[in-house]
Amino acid sequence: MISYFDYKNTTEEKIGNEGISLRDVEAMSDTINKAYNGVINKYKNKELGFMDVIYDEDLNKYYELSKYYKDYEYIVIIGMGGSILGTQMVYEGIHGIYYNELNSNSKKVYFLDNSDPEKLYDILKIVDLKKTLLFVISKSGNTVETLANFFIIKEKMDRIGCSNNIIIISSGGILKNIAEKEGYMLFDVPENVGGRFSVLSSVGLAPMSCMGIDIKGLIEGARDMDKLCKNEDVFKNPALMNALIHYIFLNRGKSISVLMPYIERLHKFGIWYRQLWAESLGKDGKGQTPVISIGAKDQHSQLQLYLDGPKDKIITFLKVKKFKEDFIIKYQNHYLNNHKLSKLINFEQLGTEGALTSKGIPNISIVLEELNEYSLGKLIYMYEIGTAFMGEMMGINTFNQPAVEEGKIITRKLLEGKSIENMMKNKLNEKYLIEM
Amino acid sequence: MISYFDYKNTTEEKIGNEGISLRDVEAMSDTINKAYNGVINKYKNKELGFMDVIYDEDLNKYYELSKYYKDYEYIVIIGMGGSILGTQMVYEGIHGIYYNELNSNSKKVYFLDNSDPEKLYDILKIVDLKKTLLFVISKSGNTVETLANFFIIKEKMDRIGCSNNIIIISSGGILKNIAEKEGYMLFDVPENVGGRFSVLSSVGLAPMSCMGIDIKGLIEGARDMDKLCKNEDVFKNPALMNALIHYIFLNRGKSISVLMPYIERLHKFGIWYRQLWAESLGKDGKGQTPVISIGAKDQHSQLQLYLDGPKDKIITFLKVKKFKEDFIIKYQNHYLNNHKLSKLINFEQLGTEGALTSKGIPNISIVLEELNEYSLGKLIYMYEIGTAFMGEMMGINTFNQPAVEEGKIITRKLLEGKSIENMMKNKLNEKYLIEM
Repeated sequence: MISYFDYKNTTEEKIGNEGISLRDVEAMSDTINKAYNGVINKYKNKELGFMDVIYDEDLNKYYELSKYYKDYEYIVIIGMGGSILGTQMVYEGIHGIYYNELNSNSKKVYFLDNSDPEKLYDILKIVDLKKTLLFVISKSGNTVETLANFFIIKEKMDRIGCSNNIIIISSGGILKNIAEKEGYMLFDVPENVGGRFSVLSSVGLAPMSCMGIDIKGLIEGARDMDKLCKNEDVFKNPALMNALIHYIFLNRGKSISVLMPYIERLHKFGIWYRQLWAESLGKDGKGQTPVISIGAKDQHSQLQLYLDGPKDKIITFLKVKKFKEDFIIKYQNHYLNNHKLSKLINFEQLGTEGALTSKGIPNISIVLEELNEYSLGKLIYMYEIGTAFMGEMMGINTFNQPAVEEGKIITRKLLEGKSIENMMKNKLNEKYLIEM
Repeated sequence: MISYFDYKNTTEEKIGNEGISLRDVEAMSDTINKAYNGVINKYKNKELGFMDVIYDEDLNKYYELSKYYKDYEYIVIIGMGGSILGTQMVYEGIHGIYYNELNSNSKKVYFLDNSDPEKLYDILKIVDLKKTLLFVISKSGNTVETLANFFIIKEKMDRIGCSNNIIIISSGGILKNIAEKEGYMLFDVPENVGGRFSVLSSVGLAPMSCMGIDIKGLIEGARDMDKLCKNEDVFKNPALMNALIHYIFLNRGKSISVLMPYIERLHKFGIWYRQLWAESLGKDGKGQTPVISIGAKDQHSQLQLYLDGPKDKIITFLKVKKFKEDFIIKYQNHYLNNHKLSKLINFEQLGTEGALTSKGIPNISIVLEELNEYSLGKLIYMYEIGTAFMGEMMGINTFNQPAVEEGKIITRKLLEGKSIENMMKNKLNEKYLIEM
């Protein structure tokens, strides 16, 4: 056995009345078939590009890219949401959070993923733009924060004459126009690959190839998971089973899905999952709020609530059997003596799992042999296709995000100096202010 | 007007039927009085040390500490939950996330807040222990992850003869014993200050004083907020009003409280708040799940769910009028041209606020003139005492965390090699595994 998806603590047998029985699964067979066939049909109709890219992408062009730019010292990536979270997830999942400080010989990597001016200032103070490879990523080519950061940096790069360092990943809008006009290197995003499903397309592969990531390993993991997930037997398909379990418990009032990795390198995986789950499934009044907790540390922050608060959560643990590094704890006459630190954190996960289970709180464990590109590729793909299955079960369109337009329109009107009556009125309501 | 707490978008007037009316507040006057008096009585009974420390602490001892250790190049802090989150919040709130990379002349700071062996490995690879000031913080003195990390580092420090660099903050257990036996510098934690309420006691003040934080500013902010929060008029007391609003909406099905700062330096404030809210209020089947979102970036990740998913959320925005740094965006013929980047992010917040309000989703804005030690001290104290008010309204004990013991017992038994029947049985349930 290599890695596994373990759902025993969602069963009647383990958590009692609230748990799932074999009868429950059998009673859902129509829903399961509908979801499975819905996804497969969309795939056959070429609507689900994320399932195609793992076979269609020619990795050689990314290897050439990374060779061409190998002497650069810094990488800055500008993007929002699905344009950047996937790359952050893989970068941190493979290299950890201290890589910039640890490795003086590798490229230092910075993610410009907000319109916070202090963040831009700090990053510009650290990097030398002449030695910086700049990726600017937006599928639509019109993402306002991406353009704002890019316009500011472009002006500086133009001034010092290093705009040869700019790589655009976009399939339209102002960004693609600029790339074509200025002759920047340009990668397209396949039309049928949505932003939050795009990490294994050019959106992720191009920048990751320049960061010392084994993109072939990622793709191989995704392909092997794809085989498993095309099995229509729910008992052999981890993504379909994961969707089914979450769907059943959502209908039983578990409005929150907690993802809790017991390895810090998977923190950003959680942040990526959060977008996938929230934005794909949160519509028409439906949805399940994703929450990320980090084990063991959030045992000292969130666990009290999970165990003794409202019974509105289903928990998924992510853990690895083997860490890249380890230590043996030495302290005479203490029960920690001679234990490995990795054993402590994994036993803490078992302790939390046991406590939740004894309170009847459903929990799943995904156990990886170790965390590398191959296992991460599996995990990514499992969650992508699993989200598609879940959307089919819920009867919603998994691949749009219609509600976010209104706020954008208000922002744009404000920037254009238009009087926003509603906003102006707000300003007058000082009776609902407390000075502090 | 300096900073303000703005709750207009929780009112009937703004969000319609679901909103709060003046009648609602009047109808709650008994609850408000009970909560107010409950907190004040506990304070008078000396049960709420977090309200005393801001007057009792002699800051001079921390100034001396920082002077004594001024030549050290690194600071490592070992602690879990409330022993470390407060210091992280203030450090990042003042210095931002890139401080270690930006400032070659300042001490580099690392937070060892988990039992993840890869994290320990990376930090030990970066720092030179001979030049490292090590804070080890645990009120009980028995926190297992803290001891594990400490035992491993202590062995290395003993070997190279630099255990003079160790500072213990604890009021008991093994940690205090070791400090006394080995003659380490030791700070006590006042008995009546709970871990998650301890950031303005020795727990935070000692390490922060060595990180270039103006601890006097923090304390002054907290004191000024304390004055406001001792006002029994809910319309003039932001913490009491915040608790009331959250209590009313919790009873109306808002089971999730989203905190959404539109300035990245407040991300860790969110993580600190998350513990305060979850662990204090999540008990007896009650509680409200805290969720942290970062604006503007999570508009591209979570906003679709907030706007169009289940109506189970109340949102609190945190924003600043003035950022430490700013940029002017230049790009001819684009609506961003000549706008400040700070204006973009603040207009995005207004856009999100407007969209939520038009959908009837309650939201609060806390607007700070700027983010510095003084305003952060205010915010911290407002949330501490506000959590105490909320606990009184909910009729629970805000200051314990009884549910987390069971998991710890299982972990310890596993480490002691005892057969955990329940755990062993789990291993046999391979019928609920899917290999992947």
